[in-house]
Amino acid sequence: MTTERGYTTGRARRERIIAAATALFGRVGFNSATMLEIAQVCEISRAGLAHHFPTKESLMEAVLETRDREDRERFRRNGSQGQDGIGVLRGMVDLARHNSEVGGIIALYAVLSAEAADPAHPAHDYFVRRYARIRSGTAKALRDARAAGYLAAHVDEDRAAAELTALMDGLQLQWLLDPASVDMAETVRRRIQELLVVPLDPAR
Amino acid sequence: MTTERGYTTGRARRERIIAAATALFGRVGFNSATMLEIAQVCEISRAGLAHHFPTKESLMEAVLETRDREDRERFRRNGSQGQDGIGVLRGMVDLARHNSEVGGIIALYAVLSAEAADPAHPAHDYFVRRYARIRSGTAKALRDARAAGYLAAHVDEDRAAAELTALMDGLQLQWLLDPASVDMAETVRRRIQELLVVPLDPAR
Repeated sequence: MTTERGYTTGRARRERIIAAATALFGRVGFNSATMLEIAQVCEISRAGLAHHFPTKESLMEAVLETRDREDRERFRRNGSQGQDGIGVLRGMVDLARHNSEVGGIIALYAVLSAEAADPAHPAHDYFVRRYARIRSGTAKALRDARAAGYLAAHVDEDRAAAELTALMDGLQLQWLLDPASVDMAETVRRRIQELLVVPLDPAR
Repeated sequence: MTTERGYTTGRARRERIIAAATALFGRVGFNSATMLEIAQVCEISRAGLAHHFPTKESLMEAVLETRDREDRERFRRNGSQGQDGIGVLRGMVDLARHNSEVGGIIALYAVLSAEAADPAHPAHDYFVRRYARIRSGTAKALRDARAAGYLAAHVDEDRAAAELTALMDGLQLQWLLDPASVDMAETVRRRIQELLVVPLDPAR
């Protein structure tokens, strides 16, 4: 009983630390965030924080892993496992909509990915691999859509994959600076719809 | 003579400081860059740096002003003053090409604009205004192109303006992380060409 409660408390504290780190990294960046600030926000000691995450790098890793797992689940719920690629494309719109509701995640990726362009940044390799994976996953979805007869004739799958990925990121930046200036999900939905000869969303 | 030489030396030093700050802000961000580091790169004392730029904020302002002036000149050379909007659109492709050759500028904007999403960041207002200006300038160019009979019927000027702006930024991020992964200028050129019923570049 005590052990179980201890485990639950530990997990809850871990999740609170990850949430605080997500917010701080998204606001000031990995480079200038400090473990002391994160400990203070969580109202724990620096040693208490080190018990869960010995280094700032290990904490960032946990933050990114948490986001990746949640994103994968979101894509799966949108039918990304299907054979025609439409579930993946629908997942992109759903992700844009979700992210514009939660905010902090967009700030996190925007700041970390820009910092990570520096090869010395601890998340450099992570982001290089992440973008390669997003582009190839999107290109595969577009090829699957082509095989199903859903893709417009003029679309080049690889170019459109890089373009859609860029569109998501660029809209996020405009939204971060001024949320009223763009409708991320609707802009992404319309652009994806332009690439298709079938409705992206069956409800529309 | 002495005065003129003194002026020239002072201007050269100022330019060297701005170049060093551009590189450092682009690598580690405004938040974690220090004036001491910039002074060291320029091989001047901290006091010598303060003579030109009393604060890190004033130095960032000079960096951004320098870039803005150079960008305006580039657009003008591409015919942005013309009545049909094509010069502005051509300027976007030229800017993407130029930036992919110089590198540091892209890193600078990527890192600073993401950090500046925080309302407390000293460049927050600058970037909010910058994006509003880029979107409205691009939308105006597209409306001018429409008036000249150059724009495809299906294009919504305001939406396409936000989309092209986002495309530029998103491609820059992919390029920063892995320069071989995208051809920024060509991707932007093709996308703009899709919006037009006339050739964007008369030479092609």
